[in-house]
Amino acid sequence: MPPSPTPRPPALCPPVRVLLGPGPSEIHPRVQKAMSAGTVGHLDPYFLEVMNGLRAMLKQVFMTDNEMTFAVSGTGSAGMEAAVVNLIEPNDKMLICVNGVFGGRMADVAGRCGAEVKVIEQPWGEVFSPEQIEKAIRDFSPKVVGVVMAETSTGASQPIEAISEVVHKAGGLLLVDAVTSLGGMPVRVDEWKIDAVYSGSQKCLSCPPGLAPVSFSPTALEVIKSRKTKVQSWYLDVSMLANYWGSERVYHHTAPINMTWGLYEALQVVLEEGLDNVFARHKLNSQALKAGLNSIGISYAAAEGYQLPMLNAVKIPDGVDDAAVRSSLLNEFGIEIGGGLGAFKGKAWRIGLMGHGARRNNVLLFLSALEQLLATQGYEFGRGDSVAAANAVYEGQSSG
Amino acid sequence: MPPSPTPRPPALCPPVRVLLGPGPSEIHPRVQKAMSAGTVGHLDPYFLEVMNGLRAMLKQVFMTDNEMTFAVSGTGSAGMEAAVVNLIEPNDKMLICVNGVFGGRMADVAGRCGAEVKVIEQPWGEVFSPEQIEKAIRDFSPKVVGVVMAETSTGASQPIEAISEVVHKAGGLLLVDAVTSLGGMPVRVDEWKIDAVYSGSQKCLSCPPGLAPVSFSPTALEVIKSRKTKVQSWYLDVSMLANYWGSERVYHHTAPINMTWGLYEALQVVLEEGLDNVFARHKLNSQALKAGLNSIGISYAAAEGYQLPMLNAVKIPDGVDDAAVRSSLLNEFGIEIGGGLGAFKGKAWRIGLMGHGARRNNVLLFLSALEQLLATQGYEFGRGDSVAAANAVYEGQSSG
Repeated sequence: MPPSPTPRPPALCPPVRVLLGPGPSEIHPRVQKAMSAGTVGHLDPYFLEVMNGLRAMLKQVFMTDNEMTFAVSGTGSAGMEAAVVNLIEPNDKMLICVNGVFGGRMADVAGRCGAEVKVIEQPWGEVFSPEQIEKAIRDFSPKVVGVVMAETSTGASQPIEAISEVVHKAGGLLLVDAVTSLGGMPVRVDEWKIDAVYSGSQKCLSCPPGLAPVSFSPTALEVIKSRKTKVQSWYLDVSMLANYWGSERVYHHTAPINMTWGLYEALQVVLEEGLDNVFARHKLNSQALKAGLNSIGISYAAAEGYQLPMLNAVKIPDGVDDAAVRSSLLNEFGIEIGGGLGAFKGKAWRIGLMGHGARRNNVLLFLSALEQLLATQGYEFGRGDSVAAANAVYEGQSSG
Repeated sequence: MPPSPTPRPPALCPPVRVLLGPGPSEIHPRVQKAMSAGTVGHLDPYFLEVMNGLRAMLKQVFMTDNEMTFAVSGTGSAGMEAAVVNLIEPNDKMLICVNGVFGGRMADVAGRCGAEVKVIEQPWGEVFSPEQIEKAIRDFSPKVVGVVMAETSTGASQPIEAISEVVHKAGGLLLVDAVTSLGGMPVRVDEWKIDAVYSGSQKCLSCPPGLAPVSFSPTALEVIKSRKTKVQSWYLDVSMLANYWGSERVYHHTAPINMTWGLYEALQVVLEEGLDNVFARHKLNSQALKAGLNSIGISYAAAEGYQLPMLNAVKIPDGVDDAAVRSSLLNEFGIEIGGGLGAFKGKAWRIGLMGHGARRNNVLLFLSALEQLLATQGYEFGRGDSVAAANAVYEGQSSG
């Protein structure tokens, strides 16, 4: 006998939010509309065309000619798992650079693949030098080196090019987490010789979460082809996925059609604006936000010179109540920002200016709301200073 | 240097399709609208409420009190992998019943988990008897027995209850694939004592592909809790997911927000109509389609008495060109049906009447279009017979 019927939950009615957290970010209105286009079959000739177009556009944003560039049917963490499970076989050595939550997650994923994992650490908010990594490689001789380009938990921006050189000099493969960076700053997959890279749809691409863009270099594909063991995940097996995304069009799993509409439109929006313009816009808005926050005595958590434009992690001023400010931002202003994770819990706010969210109106609105809440908390600063400082950056009167 | 810019692919403009294939099925207009609701954060209080509501509704359609009932952030195949990787540890024995593509897939997934897999087979289109399974269990003593309830590749409907009894008598766990059955026929998880079950959003729930409803019994959770090894997939680890879906709300991965809006609305639509009404509608439409097809000499591929209502696999009449008919259906009428997979390639058509797609207008349209194309192919039959026979079923003049 079926359980007796229970009352249905309330009708769907999502509140309107200004998403300035670590992601998901504000989706673009054109993407929002694309999400509700009619569904078609996953082997429909039109859908296959869209997959081709999606791949062509992903190659542009990843700045790569890699044929094996596509979207994994899951969120960014599925992209991470896809990259790791395909490259790693049991007992392979993987070196992972951990300076925040997401490096730690990569180590967990790699361990579950049977990798012999060695972790090197930097304090949260700091980045790795090529020398540090070179030394660890010398001691450990890893098959794969994993590094997070944009650590969403700390706002730290890890330079990739010099690391790539030391990894390849030692014959290793470079695996890069570009979840938060893709579409907000250059991710030069070919120029930097990245072997495997993954991202997410819900950060600087202004699309809802649900797809993970990935790219594998020809070298990585050779390594995958010569595996002695099956990839432990059927769902994420790149060789099988290649037969669906490639000209063979062999059915693997049912692609998330409407999510694909959304990402396709999101990439159109990015490429229409042009990558250089998109990167410049992220930079400008971050500079304005930073000028505003600095002007009222709020400083950044990540080391100077290594701060991400799209994820501004700042230190919560002494005496200010983290939870009270964030819940008032949400409940009174509809603004979401992120709290600190792990070592930064209660100590940092994470303010995202990602994709469509990275614009002047959001920066000014956020600073205006924050000033009001800080004043309520008895924090002392010059009222109006942050908005004025941000506006000055936009008007070209200051470099921030 | 970035690669030189290439022309952007054409603007997104999906064709309007009548989806009568093996899935994705036609999405409900209310679901379509829900997909484009604004995105909110994955820890937003409103989103957490929606997760609770989603779980409550999933429990109703799965007819279960299982607390661990939720949606995996991937398609149905990710649901399959989630069920298998959580229950199986290396060298565990798993018995898998294969009578079509999806049983075969389950065996592949289990092998990749390090399971000792034993497969028993039935010819495509036939089902397993409890005696067959009992014998295999006696010889093999599996920890888990996997069976596909609705084999989408053959249209065969596997009775579950009697199998459950033999599995549990031997102390095993029963894992059921309900990808195609959920929301179109009863899936009585508690009454049938199913230990783990997975489905997909894109079949009888009238939602786009991208989420996989799953449910684990308390017994299954005990087995998972007492594992000696970590679940090999971080992304699909039920213990970690339980901390996000449960009251702790520990961040795991970023949930696919808009897909969740879609599934929430889809479940509202199903429960508003009422499960019994939904099941009766699927049955009626299938009976009408069958009466129509039989009247022009087309017979079903699955054994009589074990034919699924939502997936009608029929034998392609001799002399009729499979590819020509399917491509004309698509190009001239905008109707998608499925071709045969594996052993049924070129021999069967798979006509889905799933969720919102299971309605009289679709049946009549499909039969009308098919008659036209069969006539073009020189196939001999009474013109108009199929439509008349289907209408007779709807008018209660025939049991089909």
